[in-house]
Amino acid sequence: MTAILPSFVNGAWWTPASADGATAVRDASTGGTVAHVSTDGLDLAAALEYARTTGQAGLGALTFHQRAVLLKQMALALTERKAELYEISARTGATKADSWVDIDGGIGVLFTYSSKGRRELPNTQVYVDGAVEQLSKDGSFLGRHIYTRLPGVAVQINAFNFPVWGSLEKFAPAFLAGVPSLVKPATPTGYLAEAFVRILDESGLLPAGSLQLVSGSVPDLFDHLRLGDLVAFTGSASTAERLRAHDSVQTGGARFTSETDSINASILGTDAGAGTPEFDAYVRQLVAELTAKAGQKCTAIRRAIVPAASVDAVIDAVRTRLADRVVVGDPRVEGVTMGPLASLEQRDEVLRQVERLVEAGGELVIGTGAAEPGPGAFVSPMLLRFENTTDDAVHSIEAFGPVSSIIGYESLDEAAELVARGGGSLVTSIATHDTAIAAELAGRISAFNGRVLLLDRDDARSSTGHGSPLPQLVHGGPGRAGGGEELGGIRAVLHHMQRTAVQGSPEMLTALTGIWHAGAASRPGGRHPFRKSLSELVIGDQVVSGSREVSLDDIETFARFTGDTFYAHMDESAAAANPFFPGRVAHGYLLVSWAAGLFVDPEPGPVLANSGLENLRFVTPVSPGDSIRVELTAKQITPRETDDYGEVRWDAVLRNQDDELVASYDVLTLVAKEPAAA
Amino acid sequence: MTAILPSFVNGAWWTPASADGATAVRDASTGGTVAHVSTDGLDLAAALEYARTTGQAGLGALTFHQRAVLLKQMALALTERKAELYEISARTGATKADSWVDIDGGIGVLFTYSSKGRRELPNTQVYVDGAVEQLSKDGSFLGRHIYTRLPGVAVQINAFNFPVWGSLEKFAPAFLAGVPSLVKPATPTGYLAEAFVRILDESGLLPAGSLQLVSGSVPDLFDHLRLGDLVAFTGSASTAERLRAHDSVQTGGARFTSETDSINASILGTDAGAGTPEFDAYVRQLVAELTAKAGQKCTAIRRAIVPAASVDAVIDAVRTRLADRVVVGDPRVEGVTMGPLASLEQRDEVLRQVERLVEAGGELVIGTGAAEPGPGAFVSPMLLRFENTTDDAVHSIEAFGPVSSIIGYESLDEAAELVARGGGSLVTSIATHDTAIAAELAGRISAFNGRVLLLDRDDARSSTGHGSPLPQLVHGGPGRAGGGEELGGIRAVLHHMQRTAVQGSPEMLTALTGIWHAGAASRPGGRHPFRKSLSELVIGDQVVSGSREVSLDDIETFARFTGDTFYAHMDESAAAANPFFPGRVAHGYLLVSWAAGLFVDPEPGPVLANSGLENLRFVTPVSPGDSIRVELTAKQITPRETDDYGEVRWDAVLRNQDDELVASYDVLTLVAKEPAAA
Repeated sequence: MTAILPSFVNGAWWTPASADGATAVRDASTGGTVAHVSTDGLDLAAALEYARTTGQAGLGALTFHQRAVLLKQMALALTERKAELYEISARTGATKADSWVDIDGGIGVLFTYSSKGRRELPNTQVYVDGAVEQLSKDGSFLGRHIYTRLPGVAVQINAFNFPVWGSLEKFAPAFLAGVPSLVKPATPTGYLAEAFVRILDESGLLPAGSLQLVSGSVPDLFDHLRLGDLVAFTGSASTAERLRAHDSVQTGGARFTSETDSINASILGTDAGAGTPEFDAYVRQLVAELTAKAGQKCTAIRRAIVPAASVDAVIDAVRTRLADRVVVGDPRVEGVTMGPLASLEQRDEVLRQVERLVEAGGELVIGTGAAEPGPGAFVSPMLLRFENTTDDAVHSIEAFGPVSSIIGYESLDEAAELVARGGGSLVTSIATHDTAIAAELAGRISAFNGRVLLLDRDDARSSTGHGSPLPQLVHGGPGRAGGGEELGGIRAVLHHMQRTAVQGSPEMLTALTGIWHAGAASRPGGRHPFRKSLSELVIGDQVVSGSREVSLDDIETFARFTGDTFYAHMDESAAAANPFFPGRVAHGYLLVSWAAGLFVDPEPGPVLANSGLENLRFVTPVSPGDSIRVELTAKQITPRETDDYGEVRWDAVLRNQDDELVASYDVLTLVAKEPAAA
Repeated sequence: MTAILPSFVNGAWWTPASADGATAVRDASTGGTVAHVSTDGLDLAAALEYARTTGQAGLGALTFHQRAVLLKQMALALTERKAELYEISARTGATKADSWVDIDGGIGVLFTYSSKGRRELPNTQVYVDGAVEQLSKDGSFLGRHIYTRLPGVAVQINAFNFPVWGSLEKFAPAFLAGVPSLVKPATPTGYLAEAFVRILDESGLLPAGSLQLVSGSVPDLFDHLRLGDLVAFTGSASTAERLRAHDSVQTGGARFTSETDSINASILGTDAGAGTPEFDAYVRQLVAELTAKAGQKCTAIRRAIVPAASVDAVIDAVRTRLADRVVVGDPRVEGVTMGPLASLEQRDEVLRQVERLVEAGGELVIGTGAAEPGPGAFVSPMLLRFENTTDDAVHSIEAFGPVSSIIGYESLDEAAELVARGGGSLVTSIATHDTAIAAELAGRISAFNGRVLLLDRDDARSSTGHGSPLPQLVHGGPGRAGGGEELGGIRAVLHHMQRTAVQGSPEMLTALTGIWHAGAASRPGGRHPFRKSLSELVIGDQVVSGSREVSLDDIETFARFTGDTFYAHMDESAAAANPFFPGRVAHGYLLVSWAAGLFVDPEPGPVLANSGLENLRFVTPVSPGDSIRVELTAKQITPRETDDYGEVRWDAVLRNQDDELVASYDVLTLVAKEPAAA
């Protein structure tokens, strides 16, 4: 007997004392035993508690950016030992291309979250959502929304088809949020998950308790879950239903999200007849989705919805392309382009569902509906044709393998309704070069889909494809697709946090968020804040400028110098006729340029550059004879983890001689972390 | 017998053919019959289908801004007939102050959503979420997230305590999203909901099917729900649990969110001893929450968590304030400040729960635990003291009336743990003037709360109070509080929509979103876009400027004129020592000012003003001898519904002589809808 596949819990690798009752896991192509799996005697409650204590503490000591840096280092550690993973992956039936999606795709998720975490999150532990809400006229009572991490554990239950990507796409956002993960891979391919977790453990990059792995079944897992924990499940709709019904979810406060395989669709537009680039792109994509990972993708195309007149042409083109391109076999054999299903059980299940589809009226126009001979879990690609499009079967039965159905439609209306009949999908693609068709269909079907891909001659080459979830975009979908959302960049990080409205004085909101709020204490006078490095600068440090009067001559000088002779600045009667101006007014760009002259400290120092400006609004126009002055206050400080400088956001407020608000904006600068050496 | 309270369904007012089995509803103070309620024979399935067809069509014909304008008009229609509502409201046991929260508060939600809808949403039907994601190196394949409205009906099941506010706070965001509402008020106070719906119907402002009302029970409602519908429930946790378990929610794809009354807490900080302004504010707030609406608020303070040493002082102060301020009685009687509970059933239920609290060790230190004599549902305020803080009862039993418990704590750690033991709350308030205490407590408890209020001397007067949900802030909370989110401004609108990732070429994303994406078709040349009113301007209209060389003399001129003599512009060696610059470079403000000179068309015309600028980033520095040119492209057009102008957002891109990106930003302008009359 092979060794029992270890779990990684409570800070150590664990195997059961006895191998009795362990499950054998087999190579998808050869049937040879790869590993045995058992969790007999594993203390799941202790593992969860370890995450909630040690795991929370370790991640809680880090900021978003520090966690993001670790994610990149993990990605590099996995990249270095990628060859080991590829070798193991072949046993699951994955071709090199399939393994690339799983392994390089998973590593890519870590890279993306590392990069997004540093670009789109503050270098603190609290994420601020949306604008300040003024809740009192005098500005003493404000509202704001913050996200703080959930205090529990992120339980991640993964499907068998992508043991690396499926784990990492859940782990990365949880880690970035600061929530420890407990990963439960699917048994048939859990040995590949074990391999990548081992590499991460050996890298020494994992804060204690931040990632645990349970190799095997978890019958009592949900009994131990509670408020503050969350479960992210990927798998079948029926299992999701059973898990969601547990008391810990229904009344215990544990969050539950699911991503279940759905009856995804791909529509060929009425404009995209045979011979068009869109027709060709459609067929290429359909064949790719049919054969990649032997069709074992929750995003695969299950329904090809094509104009009735094009059904035959599509079938012919698919048949030809399959014959030209697809060789089914052991992925370790040269020339093979499509591997076996993950297990004999999966193969039998797929063939059972194909039989149901045939019984419901599906005609097998490509493929036989039978298993290939031999010990491996091989089947060939299958395409079923349905004449009766209103029967439920084609919209609800899923054969989770290289199986699609083709349905004809007569009108765009009907095409949209057919998509909706899937009851909610992860993705629908539309091949059309007609923006009106695209807009109409997308408008109708978006509410039934987590993702919509528009395929045409402009993006056919650069498209990442119907079946590829990307870390930047949400992955999930309504209804049958599980109702959850994963990925989508920072969106998935926030799904691991609680949004809370906070109300209080500007001083209090400043203390809570690390962002200066107007009305909170400020420190004008003293050393000019441009003379302070990040190690010296404090939120609330402020410059209050003197005032400067704007003359008509100034406006004309600026107009001549810039070439901006817009009538509101140059033509008294035209300006006065304008609903917003009393007569000629100063250029907005003059005002912000002068403001810089008023607040800047010019000598060399820690301020390195003005990198940008945000949310500029011009409120009160400035006429000749008016004066302006500026208050510049340090608002937010974001040191970079891997540079010797960081970003300082300054709150800039321009007022006139009557104290009216002229303009407000944020100035972005780059500032050195430390004072220059003497 | 009084008349049967009508329902408003399928575009008409409906009452059952027979009054057999109708439920009597009684005045809370006098016990007199107010109405009878029955839905015997009402075709709910037809009402839902009417919403999904007629309701969806009517709202679908409007943009976000058009719906927002209608919300304001509805608010005005209700304001005009407010007196009628106040009179009816008194029968529910509400004092004038209680009715103000319910009626004016509800109308206020309409005003806020009207205003936010026009300020924060585009004047279209699709909401775009987040930034463009570049999915291919060549820019031909982009990703973006859009929200489209759910295609079904928003079923709103409300609690008895706020029949107007509770309905309108759910209706307003649904309406703005474009999703028709079916409102199901609680039977004891449904006659007040009927009154406001009647006013709205008579106002003629409701698009057909956009608002329906069911006065009475809805036993088979959930059987008719499906994917695309959503249910927003307010009420008890046990009812929420039962409804959530329905197949339509668990597997049918209907969304379900709930807001359930929770065991909210209010913490007195360790710094806020007797005699401090925070102590006084804490006691005032505690008494207010105990007596407002006779404590029948899902946000009321159920647990006063105070330093052990301050327990006696708080009890004394509460007792004194209650004696000074609170008169219980029929709210129609002069001088009464606290009304009865909503019904005799509610009164009995509250007293039952108080008994359970006493049995669990609570000592009644204020109030008797008994009903007041007479036909009305009167009880007096009650405060229970708990010595054993670890017993579950005080953290889980809710007496939904003028009842709070007081618990002592020894450390901030313990205070935070006590809050968490509530299992998830709508709100916790903290009275402290110490920002460190506030930050520590808020950091620990935010994940267990939908809202956290910080109360101190700075906001005690302006604070809207512990118990007041505001339309700007999310209302809801994790766990016991239901796990949902309502309000929060546009956030609640988006909860009525589906977020979908869309992928495609720039041209396709432009067509789908109404926002020009770089790479999509643009129209340079031709008439300058500044010469076009909104009725003539088209997304993609473009100015491509000539180029202009920057000299050292220009930089010095600009420095002298603005006073901005920052070393990067003026000191060659200091600039060269800076990590970002090759030597002296042009001011960023010079570049954007010149860009305006390059793209502007100066003559009077439809462009009225430059109102602001967003997302400015300086990418490549510009040295003396470099040239810049600008491309300005119409990106988004937002006509205002109630003005004769609107906003145009322009995409501005500055490049140098080597085609490198110098800066990018959005220019905001106000532009007339129509050309000026000749």
